[in-house]
Amino acid sequence: MTSFDAPAHGFPSSEFEGRVARAQEIMRRYEFDALLLTTSHNIRYFTGFDSQFWESPTRPWFVVVPAEGKPMAVIPEIGAPEMERTWIDDVRSWPAPQPADDGTSLLTAALAQLPRRFGRVGAELGREMSLRMPVMQFLELRDKLPGLELDNGSPCIWEVRRVKTEGEIARIRFICGIASQAYENLPNLVSQGDSVRDACRRLTIDILNRGADAVPFLPGIAGFDGPNQIVCGPQDKDLEEGDILFIDTGSTYDGYFCDFDRNYAVGKVSDEARRANAAVWDATEAGLAVARPGATVEDVWRAQSEVIEAAGSLGNNVGRMGHGLGLQLTEPPSNMPGDITMLEPGVVLTIEPGMEFAPGHMIVHEENVLITEDGCELLTLRAPRDFWTID
Amino acid sequence: MTSFDAPAHGFPSSEFEGRVARAQEIMRRYEFDALLLTTSHNIRYFTGFDSQFWESPTRPWFVVVPAEGKPMAVIPEIGAPEMERTWIDDVRSWPAPQPADDGTSLLTAALAQLPRRFGRVGAELGREMSLRMPVMQFLELRDKLPGLELDNGSPCIWEVRRVKTEGEIARIRFICGIASQAYENLPNLVSQGDSVRDACRRLTIDILNRGADAVPFLPGIAGFDGPNQIVCGPQDKDLEEGDILFIDTGSTYDGYFCDFDRNYAVGKVSDEARRANAAVWDATEAGLAVARPGATVEDVWRAQSEVIEAAGSLGNNVGRMGHGLGLQLTEPPSNMPGDITMLEPGVVLTIEPGMEFAPGHMIVHEENVLITEDGCELLTLRAPRDFWTID
Repeated sequence: MTSFDAPAHGFPSSEFEGRVARAQEIMRRYEFDALLLTTSHNIRYFTGFDSQFWESPTRPWFVVVPAEGKPMAVIPEIGAPEMERTWIDDVRSWPAPQPADDGTSLLTAALAQLPRRFGRVGAELGREMSLRMPVMQFLELRDKLPGLELDNGSPCIWEVRRVKTEGEIARIRFICGIASQAYENLPNLVSQGDSVRDACRRLTIDILNRGADAVPFLPGIAGFDGPNQIVCGPQDKDLEEGDILFIDTGSTYDGYFCDFDRNYAVGKVSDEARRANAAVWDATEAGLAVARPGATVEDVWRAQSEVIEAAGSLGNNVGRMGHGLGLQLTEPPSNMPGDITMLEPGVVLTIEPGMEFAPGHMIVHEENVLITEDGCELLTLRAPRDFWTID
Repeated sequence: MTSFDAPAHGFPSSEFEGRVARAQEIMRRYEFDALLLTTSHNIRYFTGFDSQFWESPTRPWFVVVPAEGKPMAVIPEIGAPEMERTWIDDVRSWPAPQPADDGTSLLTAALAQLPRRFGRVGAELGREMSLRMPVMQFLELRDKLPGLELDNGSPCIWEVRRVKTEGEIARIRFICGIASQAYENLPNLVSQGDSVRDACRRLTIDILNRGADAVPFLPGIAGFDGPNQIVCGPQDKDLEEGDILFIDTGSTYDGYFCDFDRNYAVGKVSDEARRANAAVWDATEAGLAVARPGATVEDVWRAQSEVIEAAGSLGNNVGRMGHGLGLQLTEPPSNMPGDITMLEPGVVLTIEPGMEFAPGHMIVHEENVLITEDGCELLTLRAPRDFWTID
């Protein structure tokens, strides 16, 4: 069995220097004097700050990436000791919570002193991002910065994060590898009559024992001849002969996600489901064959879609056939009609064909790949063409 | 040993009918014709919709709670099958992602058809909330609704969620109980020389095996004579003689959190740390003694603070000494100066005194309580006054 070595946690300063240099180049093109960041993923990307404390919605946190030099942090006191241990030097903090002024004055002062060339700051205002601060506070901040426009920085930020570094790839490769092995091991841990919830708990624990840091996403759904949806679970339902068990996981290592699923036949399943499953596997092959530099993600969608259509797909409520992946479970681009993002080496992508093969019965497959110089490399251990079986 | 029985997952329709009736009464006082909800917790509170798919930032979701009648959902197609299985009837969906119009038209139409009395809709715009949709889309939505003001609904929403129902309390009691037992068991799983990360992994797995659904928050930090911060971890550092290991957890059952910590002495620790630990335990007692209907959370803070001050506290970067708890790890109110929220039966609160007892060395304790008719009831199994020891 392949063995996967865990990279050490945390990145050297040179990693962050490289990310900031890349961001500053791209920011100039977007005509931003700075980026204003409020969310865990973007703050971690530029500072290395790693915390689960984002679960608490009480206090806003801010990081500013200027056009030149290192980022600065404007954060609640509770986070200052650890932020000061990152590679950044300028950490300003206030005693939070402080309802009357939870960082607004401190952040206003920090933004006001930035050198201005374009008069624009890119904030997390656009697609596939939500600002992690009260909108009322954002509107107040905007009013306090005459001559400095807080504009939509999301396309710029996503562009910075799109191409992964070697260090990022090593982490995604590790989490994909150990999750693949755990999936393969699941039939040894689960039997007919066990609940889907118990199956998911055992898989979660197996993934943790193989070295994952966290398993924030692991829905499991079983249904006779396939589930009717893939986003809500685990269910309390017991596994019964003829069910297909679908499990998806976004597990993480050092902040980086895998995102792929597997399907299990519980005892004997119908020939129709088996044929549909093989067709979706073939669609994955078609996607893998075209995922390379120079192709668009629309091309990757089309290759998969043609196979699914030929197999008699009734549709797909997922809305796309794969997406980017990294510090978040899903990132742009989307493998779908109209997304003409060009693939390039270093992009990590999911290949995710799915179809409703009979009313209320879905089959969805997923693998994770790295775009290389001349094609793509599987980061997951390829699923077999036929189901794994739970006896 | 006390044994805790897990409530069944999910609530009956009557639970949601009660929540909505309560919300509609409070909404009238705030003069809202509806609430507009975008976040997992608020949507789950009113519909029962349970999913881990919120990890994907790609698609916005919307639920509208009108002044009369049931909530309606305006959501991506991928979520429709399961939303239709909740108690609500009106589920509208669109094929998402759809960059040009990700639900904006559908939501605009839904809001435009609401009966208008006040001309105001409460949205998640205020303190301790972040809107889960792109701000650009929110601003566009606002412009498309002439005569209907999207205003700050956060105080109204937090007021609705503040007093917990029996069903909510049963879930918090269960997760507090099993996490308490897992904490007590940790010295059986961990020894000097193990890393903090391994200790946290074993505790996470133990909590899962006792019946938790998830462990989204479990920072562990160890330091000689106490950690210098409490929000970033687990560390890779090994446990050494003289360390104090601090672990906090927000584990969940059926969506509901516990939030409390425990402290362990690794071998023999200093008398100074032991004295500080006992003082913080005494401060918790003081908080427990005043937490009752009619007291404010400022009173609960003051009772704890007086004990800490008398023990020679150098300060506390946490900024408060406890807070509300429920579907989120932290909820209003805050036990701190200036928060005069009056306690009432059904409120679930953390009592969380902490102090820096020597420069760079903190001790923080935490218990979870339910406010009852004439006092408070511990939901956690009370920590001992002295450290548990890891040999």
